[in-house]
Amino acid sequence: MCRPRMSRCVLAAVVCAAWCAVAGVQAQPDPLPSWNDGPAKAAIVKFVRTTTDTSSPQFVSSEKRIATFDQDGTLWVEKPAVPQLTYCFGRVSAVAEKKPELKNVEPFKTVLSGERAAIARLTLPDLEKIVVATLTGITTDQYQAEVEQWLATARDPRWKKPYTELTYQPMQEVLRYLRANGYKTYIVSGGGQDFIRVYAEQTYGIPPEQVVGSMGGTRYGYDKDGKPILTRVPKLLLNDVDAGKPEGIQLMIGRRPYAAFGNSTGDRQMLEYTKAGAGLRLAVLVLHDDARREYAYGPAQGLPDTKQGTFTQALYDQAQKSGWIVISMKNDWKRIFAFQQ
Amino acid sequence: MCRPRMSRCVLAAVVCAAWCAVAGVQAQPDPLPSWNDGPAKAAIVKFVRTTTDTSSPQFVSSEKRIATFDQDGTLWVEKPAVPQLTYCFGRVSAVAEKKPELKNVEPFKTVLSGERAAIARLTLPDLEKIVVATLTGITTDQYQAEVEQWLATARDPRWKKPYTELTYQPMQEVLRYLRANGYKTYIVSGGGQDFIRVYAEQTYGIPPEQVVGSMGGTRYGYDKDGKPILTRVPKLLLNDVDAGKPEGIQLMIGRRPYAAFGNSTGDRQMLEYTKAGAGLRLAVLVLHDDARREYAYGPAQGLPDTKQGTFTQALYDQAQKSGWIVISMKNDWKRIFAFQQ
Repeated sequence: MCRPRMSRCVLAAVVCAAWCAVAGVQAQPDPLPSWNDGPAKAAIVKFVRTTTDTSSPQFVSSEKRIATFDQDGTLWVEKPAVPQLTYCFGRVSAVAEKKPELKNVEPFKTVLSGERAAIARLTLPDLEKIVVATLTGITTDQYQAEVEQWLATARDPRWKKPYTELTYQPMQEVLRYLRANGYKTYIVSGGGQDFIRVYAEQTYGIPPEQVVGSMGGTRYGYDKDGKPILTRVPKLLLNDVDAGKPEGIQLMIGRRPYAAFGNSTGDRQMLEYTKAGAGLRLAVLVLHDDARREYAYGPAQGLPDTKQGTFTQALYDQAQKSGWIVISMKNDWKRIFAFQQ
Repeated sequence: MCRPRMSRCVLAAVVCAAWCAVAGVQAQPDPLPSWNDGPAKAAIVKFVRTTTDTSSPQFVSSEKRIATFDQDGTLWVEKPAVPQLTYCFGRVSAVAEKKPELKNVEPFKTVLSGERAAIARLTLPDLEKIVVATLTGITTDQYQAEVEQWLATARDPRWKKPYTELTYQPMQEVLRYLRANGYKTYIVSGGGQDFIRVYAEQTYGIPPEQVVGSMGGTRYGYDKDGKPILTRVPKLLLNDVDAGKPEGIQLMIGRRPYAAFGNSTGDRQMLEYTKAGAGLRLAVLVLHDDARREYAYGPAQGLPDTKQGTFTQALYDQAQKSGWIVISMKNDWKRIFAFQQ
């Protein structure tokens, strides 16, 4: 029998384990290293700790841990234009090559002219025509391949980098921190659902089934060899912006989020809906106030109060009144992008 | 130093571990104990083993492991009527109490008469009117509460049991077996998405976000206290049957399944779409051929070939030609329900 010696071994093992546990606690890395200490970081950490602490009255069981994130301006850069719009405009010339008659028809003529001022004046019905012409009438596989190809070569005009490198490092840390604590992270964007799905898994660690966006219809059919295909059709099932965000969440998730992140009036209803749930809920807005490192727009810049789709003064006031957290990119974030060390 | 004794201890540990491993393999429980050995069980087991074996050329990485299941007639009993239709008919009298003018208007008059033959003759537009009257105009929370209440008291006419106890035990085992092997299991049903979500988690272990069904619209708004609410509106976003199934899968999941299970022509396109993907795919149909233990309907019973929404002879022929697996409830299943020991 080796009992005495084993006891010593066991004792050593216990001491070692205890030491490791203490060291582990001491050395526990900061889950949000790109964040400065401040009310925004503190609120996020408090939310995660409280809702995952089984002894807390505000504990949330793991299957209910849902967190939703707007994309453009919340997870990545949306200036000077949201990347998907740049993609659509770029596709116009490819479409016009196949259908030359479009070259002399508005709004395609304006887009092909490349005149920025004229393009900026395009109306919503104009943009809809462009979306229909560039994003439909092809199979889902063709569309995915085209978006992949575009992403591989397109570059942001300011940083000259692929758009997928222009995600906000502090938000990437929040995504990972939430997932490490059992939260399912979703994108809930006004952008096209299938566009975002092409890169969301690689870029954010968010799988296609957790991307909620503006939803176009598809039509099931067969190709010339009798193989099943899905063709994109010009039918908008859900416009995932404003009231469409909680409606899209109900459709795609069927549960109310516990945390929601946005940056504009388009996210207002999602944040209201999230915050109105029982228990501890987190509603967060990203304020773009860092002209040097990224862009500054919104209330600090005195934008007209009524401009939709951006961070208006009215939204800022609602955030203050409703206990929503406002992230100052300038003050709360140590760095903006991963490539900035 | 305790080297010699430690060596003996280590040797003993190694022997023990090896023995445990062998014993573990030998004692590994059958993942499908309610199934008889046969081609259906063998095909399911082969599919799971092959697609999760990293040394197989047909290995599927975990994030792509998607399996979809029709519900009515595939996971639970659909005779004499699918439970949701029974729910809708039951709701008619509650609605008529609030709106007495409906009592003399068709199709409500017929439903309230309780005359089975007349009810069976109701047309699709009639059923749509009933669905609109009974399932919309209330908040998503109210609807959920009403379905919960109904499920708690409603009983199947033959077994006198709650509908949620009339799920097929062999299919419950397939769901668990797939999940234990990293598959995400989805319901893809022609039934109402929000109806199924009420009980899917408790009944099948399938969370709301993995329920794809026929999708009605909601409208975001505020109640009299200013609290955000979602109201169900009479707008069909997607009819999740026939071609609607692959379209619904694209909308809600965004990936092609590797395995799909159904039992009628309404599942044909889902199975075609699944099977058309690269690599090893599994397409399965449940054949109801057990009049004694459940029901018998479909090709064995000489149903007219063209009857949609059931298991036609044409579907049976397509299954044979396409390498789809057909489960004979009579021959492949040891027992049908969990309550039958």
